[in-house]
Amino acid sequence: MLQYGLGIGEDQNWLFSENGFQGELLGKTETIMALGNGYMGLRSSPEESYLKQTRNLFVAGTFNKFDDGEATELPNAADLTEMEIVLGGERLSLESGRVHVYQKSLNLRTGELTREFLWESPKGRKYSCRFLRFVSLDNLHMLGMRMEITPLSGECELRWTSGINGQMTNSGAQHFHEGIKRIYDKEIAQLVQTTTQSNIDFVLHAANRWELDGEPLALKPEMNIGRRKVGMSYSCTVPAASVIAVEKIASVNTSRDAEAMQGEAYSLDMLREKSLQAFRSNFGKGYAALLSDSAARWKAYWDNADITIESEEDGFDQLAVRFAQYHLLIMTPHHDSRYGIGAKGLTGEGYKGHSFWDSEIFILPYFLHTMPSIAKGLLEYRYLGLDGARLKAADNGYEGAMYPWETAFTGKEETPVWGAVNVLTGKATKIWSGFLEQHISADIAFAVVKYAQATGDEAFMDAMGAEMLIEIASFWASRVVWDESRQAYVILNIIGPDEYKEHIDNNAFSNYMAQWAIQATIELCLSYQETKPDIYRRLNETFGIEDRLDQWRKVAARLYLPSPRAGDNLIPQDDTYLTKPSIDIAPYKNSASVQGILRDYSRDQVIGMQVSKQADVVMLLYLLQNRFSNEVKAANLSYYESKTIHDSSLSMAVHSIVASGIGERETAYEFFRQASEIDLGANMKSSDAGIHSASLGGIWKCIVFGFAGIQAENGELSMTPRLPSKWKSLRFPFVWKGTRLQIELTHEQIAIEAESPSPVPIDVRIGHQVYRLEDRLTVSYSSAQGS
Amino acid sequence: MLQYGLGIGEDQNWLFSENGFQGELLGKTETIMALGNGYMGLRSSPEESYLKQTRNLFVAGTFNKFDDGEATELPNAADLTEMEIVLGGERLSLESGRVHVYQKSLNLRTGELTREFLWESPKGRKYSCRFLRFVSLDNLHMLGMRMEITPLSGECELRWTSGINGQMTNSGAQHFHEGIKRIYDKEIAQLVQTTTQSNIDFVLHAANRWELDGEPLALKPEMNIGRRKVGMSYSCTVPAASVIAVEKIASVNTSRDAEAMQGEAYSLDMLREKSLQAFRSNFGKGYAALLSDSAARWKAYWDNADITIESEEDGFDQLAVRFAQYHLLIMTPHHDSRYGIGAKGLTGEGYKGHSFWDSEIFILPYFLHTMPSIAKGLLEYRYLGLDGARLKAADNGYEGAMYPWETAFTGKEETPVWGAVNVLTGKATKIWSGFLEQHISADIAFAVVKYAQATGDEAFMDAMGAEMLIEIASFWASRVVWDESRQAYVILNIIGPDEYKEHIDNNAFSNYMAQWAIQATIELCLSYQETKPDIYRRLNETFGIEDRLDQWRKVAARLYLPSPRAGDNLIPQDDTYLTKPSIDIAPYKNSASVQGILRDYSRDQVIGMQVSKQADVVMLLYLLQNRFSNEVKAANLSYYESKTIHDSSLSMAVHSIVASGIGERETAYEFFRQASEIDLGANMKSSDAGIHSASLGGIWKCIVFGFAGIQAENGELSMTPRLPSKWKSLRFPFVWKGTRLQIELTHEQIAIEAESPSPVPIDVRIGHQVYRLEDRLTVSYSSAQGS
Repeated sequence: MLQYGLGIGEDQNWLFSENGFQGELLGKTETIMALGNGYMGLRSSPEESYLKQTRNLFVAGTFNKFDDGEATELPNAADLTEMEIVLGGERLSLESGRVHVYQKSLNLRTGELTREFLWESPKGRKYSCRFLRFVSLDNLHMLGMRMEITPLSGECELRWTSGINGQMTNSGAQHFHEGIKRIYDKEIAQLVQTTTQSNIDFVLHAANRWELDGEPLALKPEMNIGRRKVGMSYSCTVPAASVIAVEKIASVNTSRDAEAMQGEAYSLDMLREKSLQAFRSNFGKGYAALLSDSAARWKAYWDNADITIESEEDGFDQLAVRFAQYHLLIMTPHHDSRYGIGAKGLTGEGYKGHSFWDSEIFILPYFLHTMPSIAKGLLEYRYLGLDGARLKAADNGYEGAMYPWETAFTGKEETPVWGAVNVLTGKATKIWSGFLEQHISADIAFAVVKYAQATGDEAFMDAMGAEMLIEIASFWASRVVWDESRQAYVILNIIGPDEYKEHIDNNAFSNYMAQWAIQATIELCLSYQETKPDIYRRLNETFGIEDRLDQWRKVAARLYLPSPRAGDNLIPQDDTYLTKPSIDIAPYKNSASVQGILRDYSRDQVIGMQVSKQADVVMLLYLLQNRFSNEVKAANLSYYESKTIHDSSLSMAVHSIVASGIGERETAYEFFRQASEIDLGANMKSSDAGIHSASLGGIWKCIVFGFAGIQAENGELSMTPRLPSKWKSLRFPFVWKGTRLQIELTHEQIAIEAESPSPVPIDVRIGHQVYRLEDRLTVSYSSAQGS
Repeated sequence: MLQYGLGIGEDQNWLFSENGFQGELLGKTETIMALGNGYMGLRSSPEESYLKQTRNLFVAGTFNKFDDGEATELPNAADLTEMEIVLGGERLSLESGRVHVYQKSLNLRTGELTREFLWESPKGRKYSCRFLRFVSLDNLHMLGMRMEITPLSGECELRWTSGINGQMTNSGAQHFHEGIKRIYDKEIAQLVQTTTQSNIDFVLHAANRWELDGEPLALKPEMNIGRRKVGMSYSCTVPAASVIAVEKIASVNTSRDAEAMQGEAYSLDMLREKSLQAFRSNFGKGYAALLSDSAARWKAYWDNADITIESEEDGFDQLAVRFAQYHLLIMTPHHDSRYGIGAKGLTGEGYKGHSFWDSEIFILPYFLHTMPSIAKGLLEYRYLGLDGARLKAADNGYEGAMYPWETAFTGKEETPVWGAVNVLTGKATKIWSGFLEQHISADIAFAVVKYAQATGDEAFMDAMGAEMLIEIASFWASRVVWDESRQAYVILNIIGPDEYKEHIDNNAFSNYMAQWAIQATIELCLSYQETKPDIYRRLNETFGIEDRLDQWRKVAARLYLPSPRAGDNLIPQDDTYLTKPSIDIAPYKNSASVQGILRDYSRDQVIGMQVSKQADVVMLLYLLQNRFSNEVKAANLSYYESKTIHDSSLSMAVHSIVASGIGERETAYEFFRQASEIDLGANMKSSDAGIHSASLGGIWKCIVFGFAGIQAENGELSMTPRLPSKWKSLRFPFVWKGTRLQIELTHEQIAIEAESPSPVPIDVRIGHQVYRLEDRLTVSYSSAQGS
């Protein structure tokens, strides 16, 4: 059972725990208590192995394809965490004997994982056990573990085996060649593994240091080198009530690391040597010192990013936003803009580490307004992917850049082609997203523009952003077709955000966003023409803007944008959605297992019904919120929510923000709470395949864009707070045009403080009035009004 | 704990059992209770999964290389046997709750595996469970399983999931591409997997049929197709005390099957269609009928091959020889001579399915004198490997055929190059056997000649045997070098059977056997010249016999053959063995874990000492028994045994036979007993990597060549029985020159019966007298004499 309130003192609302061991449900805390640092992600599997475990160690960007026909994926690197612990001849396993106390906790403040329990063995012997673990935020290659065991029923023989295990696979797919295995000085194990297709070398090290009752203990290891494995076993006698402890320090380096590619020509021998040298010195520091270096980095992060929620109720909301921020940091390869964010971060095999629109629409805004340089890195990743997007456009007969639905390292389309079974035919279902889910190209343009508006980073726009927008606009202008009867451009045969509708025409979200992207590009080009003729000339030479502008203007002006229907204000999600039959979706809504509807209906049947997987029109109401009246928003939110199963974790947060926007505070809070519980909540099966990256960005968005009601449109900052009635206050940082603001809200007052002199004047619209921010701005309002 | 005496009635001494579940020690019965039919081998892992399980399904001959740099190996095919069984919300696992009765038994008579237990769940609910399983000896592609569960503590909800799981690897190496996954008619699961390098298609089918209290039960499956997996889940409520049963029938076909390669051009679609069709009809028959067909084949086997031992003691010896015969059949690809026998049969990853000299020297004799056509198939396998052997000779600068130390499908050398860790350097140790262990070429020649002598199969010799001998003799003649000081040919830098001695000169075994092979070839050629001039001409044209004979004669006459030393009669194992220091080997001898000495000493250190892994000189004393006096045998047996750790399972049986030969009956029986216990005995860790194929052939040889004292030299049959004192009688079939003899021994009498009129006259020497066998021959003797 998960517990949220166990953090006390400085750890209050920083810590959550699992109480009681559940061998069937390991995936939950493996994922939600995962450790990482953006460079690598480590699922928090127990040290001792269990049948239902999923041990994963992923390194960002190290994609490999097992087979030509398969999707590229982040390979599961060699395991460093498993320990086989035999106490008095009995293998430690909490599935045998009895577990008297069990608590596994993640401390978000320090990034340390703790597991403590009292185990009574099948023979009735009791042991007190404690395991600690962290992945360093200071040295991205390092991780540390510590085990402490006290035999309570008299002296015991301990036998302990651990090492580096390269037998790991991704659900059976082995991504590595067998490589060098060595033990240096009977102390440091080294294992090399090289990916089979992308030829990335991994070099892993591990070494152990023993203590008895706090004093160093020299134990002679038995060395084992097996197939894809290297490790050491130790045996000793532990006196009754003594604490035997071992620290296992480990490191991961790859040939794709930026530093591996600097300086002299790369060679595996050099990487082995350098990383061994670095490991030796870090191993020398020991667990406590390495942890302390890492915790200091976490402190700096929280000092900059912490959000404070005072609530009448429990501290869950406070914990939930910190949980989100913790995972947002460890999922993001902030050290290297060559890599994107996986839809499951670095915490599971789900979605194979691929990047989706989740990055730009759900995650990037957090960094944009907290650590803008990371947001820039995420857009650079998309800039590096331009060639892949151009290739996809060309392959499909379009112009410009058609961004892949899923990307990995090369920027090419990586969406797998086959999915789950069709319950009628017994065959695998074709996944059409890679072919037809195209709104991502508009979403990326949207993020580029938002980034430029929020930061004023013209250098980025000049060097990269403009090129991306132009190529995206060119794609959309070539993608539309003229519809004689409508006398408008239309977009046929597409998939919108709602993936339960395939091969549809004029998905409202896609059409609006495409039009928005083209329009933004037109405006950008005109502004370059006016203010930066040199750059305009360069862009025009490269991309023939002049030749394209006309077509862009025509499409932007005459692209069919489904308007709210007279009478009910409904925006048709696509040309046929509202004509389809409805079914009772209650059995599938908020059910413990997602996509349950596909057990009863084939995908084709679901496509034929008014059933939505997730926010689609509602998503549009949020992203382009200023284009729709509150009446239209209310009508569509209500209608589409009744058709929406929320089988995507992207859905709930968006509903919350739109509800906030129209003043439905209770509904907004309800959706926020549900979004917060997707991973952190009580459903023990929801996170098996990894964390829901986008939903965690959504949590931050619910708070900042929903409850605080911040809008950052066209370079204008505005606030319309609708604080949840249970909250007493909310305080959060918000970076805007290079200035870090501390914003504090109660139900009566808005206080905005600039932490440093602002490089540009900052205006904030609150209600109907615009305020200029000097050092500190305090405005009274009433949260009960709003909409 | 293993129990041997639980078979009663017609199953007496046909059945052995494990009583009590031991989750840490699953490997033992997975291996020794493995099922198979020569086409495929299936480790007997429990249906419900455990951490320490090793689920393996191997199909003979389907070798694949994961990587260029790795050894080819039998890939672990998709698992068909796992069942996840959830009873009243609790997953069936004997590591949780309590197990009140547990018995797992293999019936050697019928080939059926049974597992029965009473499980008390952690919540205290009791279930009686029974699992049955067989691999068909009738239809080599089929296997059947049956589960029966009775809830004893009231009605229960059952949830059962099973299918075909292609996520299996060989210790992390994935040998298959992801392939087609289908479910036909919501009933039959099909999974295709194709090996990555050898391009062999596997097509597996599975389907389930339910019963409640013996009546058919229609359950609707939930269908699951995942990564490399296809399966079905069923749920139902089982009334208290009712028996819910499911039969799971499965099949395995591959593109390498002989029948797949017949007729029309092969296509995967055709294989899928044909195998699906065959599966449908077999699934229709049901478990009981399929088992009965298989058991009938087992009956026929036993009717032909059964050996009867009457002992004063328990029935262990009787069981042990049946155990050996059971495994000898299921390990041998008797259906197809393109495949060899693996050193671990088809029961484990050990030795990667490769064939060694084990086949010719330890296993072939059993088939030669029981089912000679299978022996012929084994030699055909070596004939098909001639090109690989020629290649190896050429690569090493020799002539003729240098047989690889390890072979798989192509006949090329497949010995891996790197092995376990060197305890001093922390580096992997180089395996020299593939380079230097060369006696196998003589061993194969030895088997060819023995086959010809025992069967009189001239057609085989004319078509294949002669060519093999000539090429082997040519190899050896090119392998020797002239030693001026000795004035003899010598063989330098070699490894003999004792693998704890590398890079040695004049290994006695290798020198003697090489000389024997050359001499036998000379004699064969001369005999062809005399009796079959046409064949002689053909062979001479192809192999230039005339040009080679001179050199063969010179080498055969002047190859250095270390003779027993004056004084102590010791034959030096090699040029330096007897000069090396000795250590106390008691700690390593007969220890629970083999190769324990390599934990204390590096391989180089062991090479420098008088320590032998296994029979070497003693092996020579056995194979060329007529060349050495009993005095020499006794002296060497005693000396070398004191230096031998028996770290190879090939060792003990050879010692037993030599001891029998010199009349040391108690010693012989002791070694026999130890050999019998290698797999079947109490050491629960001895068989984890698979069965010890050669040692099982050795058990038969102990009985027939040792205790019954049969010699079949130069086409002459002789008998000098030394029945163990505890045995009252021994009865066994022995095929000789096309006639099946039934031989019955007591301590006083030898009775030999010819089961059919013999095509050629059969003479048997007993003591100093030669008897001609008519229908039945009875001779009195005293077993106490002998040597």
